[in-house]
Amino acid sequence: MVVGVVGLGLIGGSLALALRRAGHIVIGKNRSAGAIEYALSHGVIDRASDDLSECEAVFVALPPRATTEYICTAPFKRGAAVADICGVKAVIEREVLARRPNLCYVGTHPMAGKEVSGVENACADLFDRASMVITSNARTDGRAYETIVGLVKDMGFLRLVECSAEEHDKKIAYTSQLAHIVSNCYVKDGQIDGCLGFTGGSFQDMTRIAGVDENVWTELYLANADNLAGNIKLLAAHLCETAAAIERGDAEALRSLLRAGRERFEDGKSNSFQGERIRTTLLK
Amino acid sequence: MVVGVVGLGLIGGSLALALRRAGHIVIGKNRSAGAIEYALSHGVIDRASDDLSECEAVFVALPPRATTEYICTAPFKRGAAVADICGVKAVIEREVLARRPNLCYVGTHPMAGKEVSGVENACADLFDRASMVITSNARTDGRAYETIVGLVKDMGFLRLVECSAEEHDKKIAYTSQLAHIVSNCYVKDGQIDGCLGFTGGSFQDMTRIAGVDENVWTELYLANADNLAGNIKLLAAHLCETAAAIERGDAEALRSLLRAGRERFEDGKSNSFQGERIRTTLLK
Repeated sequence: MVVGVVGLGLIGGSLALALRRAGHIVIGKNRSAGAIEYALSHGVIDRASDDLSECEAVFVALPPRATTEYICTAPFKRGAAVADICGVKAVIEREVLARRPNLCYVGTHPMAGKEVSGVENACADLFDRASMVITSNARTDGRAYETIVGLVKDMGFLRLVECSAEEHDKKIAYTSQLAHIVSNCYVKDGQIDGCLGFTGGSFQDMTRIAGVDENVWTELYLANADNLAGNIKLLAAHLCETAAAIERGDAEALRSLLRAGRERFEDGKSNSFQGERIRTTLLK
Repeated sequence: MVVGVVGLGLIGGSLALALRRAGHIVIGKNRSAGAIEYALSHGVIDRASDDLSECEAVFVALPPRATTEYICTAPFKRGAAVADICGVKAVIEREVLARRPNLCYVGTHPMAGKEVSGVENACADLFDRASMVITSNARTDGRAYETIVGLVKDMGFLRLVECSAEEHDKKIAYTSQLAHIVSNCYVKDGQIDGCLGFTGGSFQDMTRIAGVDENVWTELYLANADNLAGNIKLLAAHLCETAAAIERGDAEALRSLLRAGRERFEDGKSNSFQGERIRTTLLK
């Protein structure tokens, strides 16, 4: 299949590599010439073009606003499946449905990434064993949906998660956006100066994603503001509750708070129930 | 050298394995017979004994209160270097100095661990490339100190960090204890149910240590309450500040908060200055 990829960054580049690995022909499009040159000389794409109207499927791997703008205005082949890969889904789906209701749009969100960006960090196996969330609604075109599901399988994903854009945004505010906020806030403590030598895996895990791009993530957070603000405030409340027990020197209360977290964690790990509105399929 | 290890859990077992790997003879002591049997049959220790008074150095790898109790009451060889490995140092040092002022005590805290416990998870290379913090004070015995430093080198540590017990506790509240509290609080959100398929590396990193033992950690947190409560409240304040910008839909404020975090993180990574009171040495 001839597949277009718009935006050759870490994710776009990795999608392109994974699609090529599966035997598809990938046409890349990118604003800056540097990424195109790199992608061509490193076999990330088969060729470059600004016109993707010959592609049967197109993945748009741009920040949210640029994604919506591109999807709503670019020329596509009639019936082509057009997917975005943004970390928020409802805001994009809403605008695409309103402005271009006949487009065969499908929302996707690959559950993989790195703390670095750029096509030079892309790799063909970034999505191997990862989950892909696909969002749809009552008006989603069935054929386009199946096209995207087929490509997702080809790219090496382990798990397909199907739900509405709204369900996606609720879950992702907690599992991903909150984690990025915590990491970013964690490093704003004067004790970070000179803490080399006092850091083990827990500190490294906690701060790994503290330095992600503030422009992209500002867009993502604001496009999911209600869900995310709720998650942040709940976490802050749990932190303050724990701090209060520590300040009081209340061993019993502290132990019971910690136990509650541990048990919740253990339940959460063993609980694969996702409700009626989320369907999960293992792809291999 | 004949070295004793008291408490054959993950850390004690790994110390024993690393010491044996370096050619030392290790005598193990443990309350439960199961861990002793395992340690003997898997080559973790050379032999088991309740009496460690022939050892020239002893590592006590028990929870804080049990550690203090053991160090203050057990029979040791005259002049033997006695080290604990607890995650808090001032509370132990204070009590040992008060109750057994002539003991050659040295505080250590290996900056390595796992989210699992028990001697069966111990490994000889747990400390390879890790940092070891050693704490001392004006009354610390110089020969015992050098004995422990020598053993630390032998065990494969990459970096030696020398400071007072109080400096250690300040740094560790931030780099380790706060991370464990955050992880424990992070999982107390209803969205954790059914989030399988929506989790990438960031969620896994954030929650990896959510389930550590509440008994051990209650002791550790309360023994460092002032430092830790301050760090938790500061983080909660930064979270709330971020949530407020998100709720207001204030892109400029949010972007600037995120930028401040990213820059702090980048500065922190490149900043190896540890002040006059902390000395860091690369061991290889």
